[in-house]
Amino acid sequence: MPPVTLTSDFGLADSYAGEMKGVILSGSDVPVIDITHELPRGDIWAGAWALRRIWMRFPVDTVHLCVVDPTVGSGRRAIAARAGERWFVGPDNGLLTFLDHEIIGIEAVRSVWRLRPPVGAPVSSTFHGRDLFAPAAAALARGRIDEALGEELAPASLARLAVPPAERGPEGLAGIIVHVDRFGNLVTDLPVEWLGEEPRVRVGTATVSGLADSYADVAPGTALLTRGSVGTLEVSVRDGRADRELQAERGDTVLVEAAPR
Amino acid sequence: MPPVTLTSDFGLADSYAGEMKGVILSGSDVPVIDITHELPRGDIWAGAWALRRIWMRFPVDTVHLCVVDPTVGSGRRAIAARAGERWFVGPDNGLLTFLDHEIIGIEAVRSVWRLRPPVGAPVSSTFHGRDLFAPAAAALARGRIDEALGEELAPASLARLAVPPAERGPEGLAGIIVHVDRFGNLVTDLPVEWLGEEPRVRVGTATVSGLADSYADVAPGTALLTRGSVGTLEVSVRDGRADRELQAERGDTVLVEAAPR
Amino acid sequence: MPPVTLTSDFGLADSYAGEMKGVILSGSDVPVIDITHELPRGDIWAGAWALRRIWMRFPVDTVHLCVVDPTVGSGRRAIAARAGERWFVGPDNGLLTFLDHEIIGIEAVRSVWRLRPPVGAPVSSTFHGRDLFAPAAAALARGRIDEALGEELAPASLARLAVPPAERGPEGLAGIIVHVDRFGNLVTDLPVEWLGEEPRVRVGTATVSGLADSYADVAPGTALLTRGSVGTLEVSVRDGRADRELQAERGDTVLVEAAPR
Repeated sequence: MPPVTLTSDFGLADSYAGEMKGVILSGSDVPVIDITHELPRGDIWAGAWALRRIWMRFPVDTVHLCVVDPTVGSGRRAIAARAGERWFVGPDNGLLTFLDHEIIGIEAVRSVWRLRPPVGAPVSSTFHGRDLFAPAAAALARGRIDEALGEELAPASLARLAVPPAERGPEGLAGIIVHVDRFGNLVTDLPVEWLGEEPRVRVGTATVSGLADSYADVAPGTALLTRGSVGTLEVSVRDGRADRELQAERGDTVLVEAAPR
Repeated sequence: MPPVTLTSDFGLADSYAGEMKGVILSGSDVPVIDITHELPRGDIWAGAWALRRIWMRFPVDTVHLCVVDPTVGSGRRAIAARAGERWFVGPDNGLLTFLDHEIIGIEAVRSVWRLRPPVGAPVSSTFHGRDLFAPAAAALARGRIDEALGEELAPASLARLAVPPAERGPEGLAGIIVHVDRFGNLVTDLPVEWLGEEPRVRVGTATVSGLADSYADVAPGTALLTRGSVGTLEVSVRDGRADRELQAERGDTVLVEAAPR
Repeated sequence: MPPVTLTSDFGLADSYAGEMKGVILSGSDVPVIDITHELPRGDIWAGAWALRRIWMRFPVDTVHLCVVDPTVGSGRRAIAARAGERWFVGPDNGLLTFLDHEIIGIEAVRSVWRLRPPVGAPVSSTFHGRDLFAPAAAALARGRIDEALGEELAPASLARLAVPPAERGPEGLAGIIVHVDRFGNLVTDLPVEWLGEEPRVRVGTATVSGLADSYADVAPGTALLTRGSVGTLEVSVRDGRADRELQAERGDTVLVEAAPR
């Protein structure tokens, strides 16, 4: 049976993630896999980026359940989507933004449904993760699709984060920092294939040149450019934190000068 | 096979939780499910509350292993209990307090046993989680009940936390805050069914009126009352932390004025 | 099927641990068990100590995958090792130091191989955990040993941390603190069997005497010696943190005076 993965901002000091696991495991033996429950509170962007990174690493038909849901109980829709031969379940608030982002996305979201509330079980107004999303995820993992899916929706109607697309212009490239990881690495949305041979990158307070093969290519404390593990440009400081040392954060613009002819 | 769930204050910077998992998985393929290892150090109340919330979400015969054990190695008993068709394993120090709490509990603890130490394996004096509780939990999950259970004990002899019961008086209701969650929400022990139509609730520095359907019913920064996801009154601040903004903490009294006639 | 355990410094705010899990689960149903992803960044010693503690708790043929890899992409080797009837996979940077440490280790590392890169999948220069170690761990758990193992290496060539061995001299014993746990307990490398009947231990700013059976043997706030759960001397403060109160940290020397005749 394909697994259900869990990605949330519930933290682990509370029992919320545990309650979702119990619901999924009740009446089935679906494998439940934690991605993280430590996303920053209410940070939809962080959830969207995690989904973008993990989804294709899991087997076909895996159900990716993501709950970052600051407007739970409001009118926002509860949805399931099908993309890249996997399922996605959660609130319709932008969590799928990066799946089919025109630059860094790699799979179109072709089909979306409103979730069908579980029969005979009350749905609280504050914990849809347990009462609505977890039962739907378990049903999808077990192949009971009709139990989970309600009305079909137009993919174009999905909520999206306003993330500007990376651009190639005559002067060079303009992208943004889409994620800052635990190590302070700055992950951008600029495909490494767009870069010339000797890129000069302006980010935060610094200009960094040349693409390194690995952190070991530069001296400790030095900034460097690498091909990140999703194929886009990353800016790091060896044995340091690029976010602090270059004063850069998520959403900041990253400019790459066109290589001189 | 039913799962074993793990709830502890071991944290994840050490290998203690991992050692327990290894013991459970040795010689069996019991599914092991993390609830949390991030309970505050030695906080029995937090463990008791987590058990109260999660136990009934898991399948019948699930074994809930909870280790918050500040007096490990003292005379406190090591026990297994049966309640609500599930098993509970851990130190006898109050962790089962909320299971059959007269207001918010929902299942009597009918049977309790002292644990039988595993045969042929030494039991350290400082890590009963690994050496005593984990083997017993694995045996119970595998249906080898005689391996785990020793002398039967009187349920009335169980250690309990001194948590005052909620009260309904002529002037109104008096309860307490039983949990403050990651988001700063104040979870009380007052069943929402006890409240009148327009409750006025005094908690911390504030008086909050009216029951909201969801966070979205009020403006950002405003305090609100909701029916929490275990059916009791919760006090929240939309997009804020009620604990800080209302200066309230676990154990504080919550008063509800009787609705005027 | 034996499980794959995961031990890393990736944290849980990023998706790195989740990506490794996906790779392991793709094309197999190997159980994946989290030990921890909260090791301090780049702390090879902490990873080595976690491996020392957990490995023998898991079933024979378990694959222990450990990624603390500050020099990823440099010339450091990627290896698998066989010891104690379990597999170990990760970078060759000292993570196996404590397995066959002459005092506290309990199993020789008999066989070591360079990892074989997976066929037909690119290996990034910055995330060998996902691209190199996880596929090898999955292959070993499934018994596809030839897929994972390349050239055999000399065990003596393994990288090792420079941890001085504990010593028994005429004046007494000299060891070190090998780990400070979440509770501030000081774990040493001195086997309790080496101690006399009334050991006097000098550690940090304190001298502590006598071996206690459990924390409950002393008054709150008092320092005590115990037989730790791996059989070595531990120094604790009941209901307190020994590291802070005795001003001691990992790597510090611990001296035990010879018992007077």
